[in-house]
Amino acid sequence: MERKRNISMAVIKRLPKYHRYLREMLNNDVDRISSKELSEKIGFTASQIRQDLNCFGDFGQQGYGYNVKDLYTQISGILGLSREYKTVIIGAGNIGQAIANYTRFDKLGFELQSIFDANPKLIGMRIRDVEIQDIDNLSNFLKRNHIDIGIICVPRINAQRVSDVLVSNGVKAIWNFAPVDLNTPEDVIIENVHLSESLLTLSYLLNEREEEE
Amino acid sequence: MERKRNISMAVIKRLPKYHRYLREMLNNDVDRISSKELSEKIGFTASQIRQDLNCFGDFGQQGYGYNVKDLYTQISGILGLSREYKTVIIGAGNIGQAIANYTRFDKLGFELQSIFDANPKLIGMRIRDVEIQDIDNLSNFLKRNHIDIGIICVPRINAQRVSDVLVSNGVKAIWNFAPVDLNTPEDVIIENVHLSESLLTLSYLLNEREEEE
Repeated sequence: MERKRNISMAVIKRLPKYHRYLREMLNNDVDRISSKELSEKIGFTASQIRQDLNCFGDFGQQGYGYNVKDLYTQISGILGLSREYKTVIIGAGNIGQAIANYTRFDKLGFELQSIFDANPKLIGMRIRDVEIQDIDNLSNFLKRNHIDIGIICVPRINAQRVSDVLVSNGVKAIWNFAPVDLNTPEDVIIENVHLSESLLTLSYLLNEREEEE
Repeated sequence: MERKRNISMAVIKRLPKYHRYLREMLNNDVDRISSKELSEKIGFTASQIRQDLNCFGDFGQQGYGYNVKDLYTQISGILGLSREYKTVIIGAGNIGQAIANYTRFDKLGFELQSIFDANPKLIGMRIRDVEIQDIDNLSNFLKRNHIDIGIICVPRINAQRVSDVLVSNGVKAIWNFAPVDLNTPEDVIIENVHLSESLLTLSYLLNEREEEE
């Protein structure tokens, strides 16, 4: 597949949405879809869709549209879902447990290998067959097991320390739920989920709307 | 405060980050900060920061920088945090419980009024003093109580229905954790947290990085 270099984050951020819509169509036994129909469903313009997909190769055929299954498979591949990822969760509080319980991530190929926490009440508990270990074992565990993605769900104050342990043991990608910007070497990929920031965007928009009225 | 109209979503999305950094500085008893120092901390250029803040009024003084407490108060106000918001959570599964347990949201002024679920095993349980009610009561509850923000944590398949109940009872803002794009009238504000999409962005970037190596 010919893939353009330097694909913008805006395009990358739209890909999972294509993936989600195509999966839904597959589940509803839709075989093919025109870029116009896809556009109506997904809410991007047809020209936006063509531009986005053209970054990754030549999909779709004039007068036929897209083969849903083919496009789904291709986008899965582009998103890196044709392989599996070993993950660990650090922090078995509310968010950590919620992520650990989320079975959809397994189905997508993200395999939870272990969970770590400092709280003696949690250590030894199991979430869906994965035992919560003492966080003091994290470094050793990482030395013995290749882990692709570390999922940080500890309080803000501990997040950088956990990130340092992950990075110094070769973890190259961090999914960070702590409300802090982590300092990491350039070759480590960080994806943040900052829930408070999302909520404050909502309050901003709601407040602005009500002021206008 | 003179506020420009049509502030871009990019600026709006950066405001909560300013808010977070300023709160941290306040907690560390920092009184004032130059735009250069703020830039080093937050990772935006000094000129970006000046441009962002200029959308909302005239902050900072030449040669002095920003008064941290003033700027924090102003940005809190811009984010709509000088008032309170009544919220309900629909769906008391993993994510719903995690959100309900998040005490930071209370401190920011988001007051959880009730939680709803369809699961008889959950109904009647309490999360931090808030009782989980039968989802069949949602519509009645909304008729009797003014709710600003509905937080949707139900499975994908039920999300649109819950959204319809919220909207038809006058809820004007939805924080949506279900992996679906809701259809709502134009005057309803939607903020999505699509966890799978965030994780797939990470796998895309990780896979791309590894292909380059």
